[in-house]
Amino acid sequence: MINRIDHIAIAVSDLDSAIDTFINLLGCDRSAVAIHEVPSEKVRAAFIPVGQTKIELLEPLGDDGPIAKFLSRSGEGMHHIALAADGIENETERVTSLGLTPLGKVSEGAGGKKIVFLHPRQTNRVLVELVEPKAHH
Amino acid sequence: MINRIDHIAIAVSDLDSAIDTFINLLGCDRSAVAIHEVPSEKVRAAFIPVGQTKIELLEPLGDDGPIAKFLSRSGEGMHHIALAADGIENETERVTSLGLTPLGKVSEGAGGKKIVFLHPRQTNRVLVELVEPKAHH
Repeated sequence: MINRIDHIAIAVSDLDSAIDTFINLLGCDRSAVAIHEVPSEKVRAAFIPVGQTKIELLEPLGDDGPIAKFLSRSGEGMHHIALAADGIENETERVTSLGLTPLGKVSEGAGGKKIVFLHPRQTNRVLVELVEPKAHH
Repeated sequence: MINRIDHIAIAVSDLDSAIDTFINLLGCDRSAVAIHEVPSEKVRAAFIPVGQTKIELLEPLGDDGPIAKFLSRSGEGMHHIALAADGIENETERVTSLGLTPLGKVSEGAGGKKIVFLHPRQTNRVLVELVEPKAHH
């Protein structure tokens, strides 16, 4: 079941400067920001809470990961939307049966949470992530 | 004060088909979808609630409005993020004093709500809208 947007992700070239921009915009405190390194995705991610969702700022680690490639192709900007999916395996099956295409299997993302991305071809060129709200360890 | 993301907007070429895609993805009912024509912006907009935020699908009306131009330049995809700003005039002053640039004055958007956009140059190429949560008439 999907009843919340977990986060909206933005690709940025300089994480610290982008954190300043968005905490200024939102009027929140830097102590609210959580930073994760996700070596498997080759990114450093900052999460800024906004109500029941978050803004995620993504800075590449190295120059050959998906965010590094996105930045060199498209520049900074919105990268994906993540939907909180309780029972992510069942939700992935449900949306697959409706014609959407998971990009690989459910795997572990930032903070040990289970995630899967869906191919943007079937969702109006919006990259959609499903994320299990709770970490599984 | 900003404490909620009001909506995430996606530019689409066929609104009805995009509504089907996103209600399928979210597992919600078509009766939950609200459609507005906004002639001043030359768009037809569908709002799909997801928790305390919404996904807004934007289809151009005619071929010379901002969404028509976005589609012909970039194709379908994420277009902007709207932040719920209680006291939008004060919030606009606050973010202007921090170096952000409003694109014009606070004006009337979909559903009679007061809105203003901020120039994406200062926000990592993300187009940000401020929207007063309640309509003002």
